[in-house]
Amino acid sequence: MSAGRPRSARAAIVAIGDELLEGRIVDANSGWISARLAELGIKSDVFVVRGDDADALEGALRELCAAHALVIATGGLGPTLDDVTREAAARAAGVGLATCEEVLEGLRESYRLRGREMPASNVRQALLPEGAERMANRCGTAPGFRMPLGSALLAALPGPPHEMRDMFERELAPWLGTRFAQRSSFARARFLLAGLAESAFADRAGSWMERNASPRMGVTARFGVLEVTLHSEASDAERARALLEPRAREFRQRFGSAIFSEDEARLEFVVGRRLLELGLTVATAESCTGGLVAELLTEVPGISAAFREGWITYSDEAKVRRLGVPRELLEKHGAVSSEVARAMAEGAARESGAELALAVTGIAGPGGGSAAKPVGLVWIAVARRGVALAREMRNPPVDRASIRRYAAHAALDFLRTELELA
Amino acid sequence: MSAGRPRSARAAIVAIGDELLEGRIVDANSGWISARLAELGIKSDVFVVRGDDADALEGALRELCAAHALVIATGGLGPTLDDVTREAAARAAGVGLATCEEVLEGLRESYRLRGREMPASNVRQALLPEGAERMANRCGTAPGFRMPLGSALLAALPGPPHEMRDMFERELAPWLGTRFAQRSSFARARFLLAGLAESAFADRAGSWMERNASPRMGVTARFGVLEVTLHSEASDAERARALLEPRAREFRQRFGSAIFSEDEARLEFVVGRRLLELGLTVATAESCTGGLVAELLTEVPGISAAFREGWITYSDEAKVRRLGVPRELLEKHGAVSSEVARAMAEGAARESGAELALAVTGIAGPGGGSAAKPVGLVWIAVARRGVALAREMRNPPVDRASIRRYAAHAALDFLRTELELA
Repeated sequence: MSAGRPRSARAAIVAIGDELLEGRIVDANSGWISARLAELGIKSDVFVVRGDDADALEGALRELCAAHALVIATGGLGPTLDDVTREAAARAAGVGLATCEEVLEGLRESYRLRGREMPASNVRQALLPEGAERMANRCGTAPGFRMPLGSALLAALPGPPHEMRDMFERELAPWLGTRFAQRSSFARARFLLAGLAESAFADRAGSWMERNASPRMGVTARFGVLEVTLHSEASDAERARALLEPRAREFRQRFGSAIFSEDEARLEFVVGRRLLELGLTVATAESCTGGLVAELLTEVPGISAAFREGWITYSDEAKVRRLGVPRELLEKHGAVSSEVARAMAEGAARESGAELALAVTGIAGPGGGSAAKPVGLVWIAVARRGVALAREMRNPPVDRASIRRYAAHAALDFLRTELELA
Repeated sequence: MSAGRPRSARAAIVAIGDELLEGRIVDANSGWISARLAELGIKSDVFVVRGDDADALEGALRELCAAHALVIATGGLGPTLDDVTREAAARAAGVGLATCEEVLEGLRESYRLRGREMPASNVRQALLPEGAERMANRCGTAPGFRMPLGSALLAALPGPPHEMRDMFERELAPWLGTRFAQRSSFARARFLLAGLAESAFADRAGSWMERNASPRMGVTARFGVLEVTLHSEASDAERARALLEPRAREFRQRFGSAIFSEDEARLEFVVGRRLLELGLTVATAESCTGGLVAELLTEVPGISAAFREGWITYSDEAKVRRLGVPRELLEKHGAVSSEVARAMAEGAARESGAELALAVTGIAGPGGGSAAKPVGLVWIAVARRGVALAREMRNPPVDRASIRRYAAHAALDFLRTELELA
């Protein structure tokens, strides 16, 4: 952090697991935690990855706690003997391990609900360093904990990202707020965009993206969805906001309807909730995405009120029999065409009785491409009141899974823009 | 590493850049390097991520070089002022920076070829610590270097993965081979298991999982799929294999049909390829998984030869109309029941003409649970030759997305075990 700017509490983040150190899994937790800590006014100096080795981890925790006000660990909290975080933390603090009855009872209960005996090894998960406060895990069985270690505070979170994030938000973030008075204030705005390539975005954003621009802009791209953050820092909250807000207003003007949300990062949730608000029903007909569009939409809780049904018509035969796609269209234009995409959407709407229908047909590869219809070519259609509109997208011929994600996001975004007109 | 076992060269890997420390980019380089080093007989003890801060990096390099025979750095070699690796390495070694004419000429040439003037800032890229050997960059402009630092060897590679990997293979790996005669050899076995909870696995594996067991065992769990590795180390390859093989044989005996593969980590690929080998066709009928089972199966290239079609029958109405599920069954047993799961599978097989059909119906939550049918309850059925078998699974009431993943993996594993009987 450059001189002159207000100083803030410093943190170290340690990720634990042989699978990380052997390169079988990439540590995405540390970066996520670092970004969240920055929002709380806590800067991260270093990330460390260690294997499932209690001695090495004990030494690492001692060193990190000597040099930082806060150390956050992820991983190594499971029931197996190679989960060593509890033990290493206790040894680094010079305390023993004690069984937390509350945790043990919770574990027994969750097995009882499933009508199963709790395996003996699960008892390990109820051990916590003496003097540690437990942090509840609402998404899994392994609890986390937090404790003083030397002059620092150590917090241990589980390794699975969804468990880690949930515990961080519910159990750790509020507590950190009370422990670390922010010495500087931050303001942050977040925009989610779709239907815009990263390079096209960069051209339009221009100097806003420069490294020492203020507010600072960060962009991450995920299969056609862009997450853009604006971040300002000042001595107090009002100044930070005053730095941020004019830029945020300009941003909304410049990118307009490409912005699908300013909080929810997931396009499918925005589209699903909009369908529920409008009381509209939808059906899906998919070929190359193989069910991905329906799967994303049905991740939205309560979507059963809007989602009627979906077809995965992988073969031409299924397109004809389930959706009534005319054979002539398939013969004349091929399965990956505007005509067939529209016929699929119209058929899905007609068969299901839904007000809207979404269809996707394309070439996900690796095989099946041609000069005229290369791998990555996808046609998307939205049917409304029986009439369908189609859009073509040409993806870079990256891997099959990525093409399917790009296509599913493009389909959901097409539906979103149609709903804007509702 | 526990005493007694043969020692091998130990490495530390440090990734450099504010974009990593701020969570804007995930460090995938360190894991890749670690896996490659392991193949050269060099074990990595730790990964460290540091920002673009020369002082902090200088200190980190000093510490790491004091504790390891080899330190590999990635990033911070670019032309801009925030690229600090050259400077930090020189200071840590107590030497100055000198311009490498060879590099400078190469940079000038590359700009000349593109018919452009070389920006003044690029001269920085021609600076190397005194006594460092340059490593050529065939994919970009920033050269790497290697040098002694204290009793260790430091190698600095660029941050962009394709540049880093190319330089590692061409310039570093051969050199490491001459510097680090393999002091020990490794043998490794890998097993993928399904249908077994991590804690149940731990109970059955028992002492095999102890920290200093030899061979050493590591376990990673992903929504009901377990990845288990056995790792042995000895003075030569034959001894390492001799340590590993008896345990690997015992492992196969003890876990038998729960092992779905010894190489492919993805259950859907194993199941999809098996269907293609056997020349069998399959259809899917999904409720709570909303298309996830079909989506996973259709990620397998060439699966169109086996995958006929799929239905997402989210509503009772769709279950009746598309799959011919009798209304009485829905009224009497409810949509989440053995009877309805079997009827869905039989209907999907009948309608599609596929030899096999897979059906899933359950309560993914957060709503819709009851005492008798809690969130997490899922019924899975496989139909074969018109007759369906069903299985119940009770997941911990974790988040909706996880329950769906667990259910999809359980369904694919049910199909896999049925195919074993083929």
